[in-house]
Amino acid sequence: MKKKAVFYHAGCPVCVSAEANVAKSLDHQTFDVETVHLGKDKSRIQEAERAGVKSVPALVIDGAPFHINFGASLADLKK
Amino acid sequence: MKKKAVFYHAGCPVCVSAEANVAKSLDHQTFDVETVHLGKDKSRIQEAERAGVKSVPALVIDGAPFHINFGASLADLKK
Repeated sequence: MKKKAVFYHAGCPVCVSAEANVAKSLDHQTFDVETVHLGKDKSRIQEAERAGVKSVPALVIDGAPFHINFGASLADLKK
Repeated sequence: MKKKAVFYHAGCPVCVSAEANVAKSLDHQTFDVETVHLGKDKSRIQEAERAGVKSVPALVIDGAPFHINFGASLADLKK
């Protein structure tokens, strides 16, 4: 079974670059990679928080959160 | 020809986790992935800086730097 990787972003320039370079560079034979725009899909923010996501862009690989650079804090997206 | 991805780290816990999860999850059919321990191999710090690396762990994918979480600043590694 494939492992799950979720790329959370908010459309920021850093996010777009991280998606194109990092998320798309994952081994798609090992991972199902989902991309979630938290600015548009606010219902997924809680799920991201539970996975340990503090800022976007972030990549949750097999449950472990990795923050890439620093884009926008989740607190700001809730406003 | 394969693209080049370099994972720079300094042996910190965040670095080890990022290497195991992010660097090793890249598509190795597309990328030659090199891991560089900047704490041990200080001669590579300049190269990392030129690529735009400000902190480790960082992944330079095809020349573009992506910082993962925040571990140790390059300035601290020079001490």
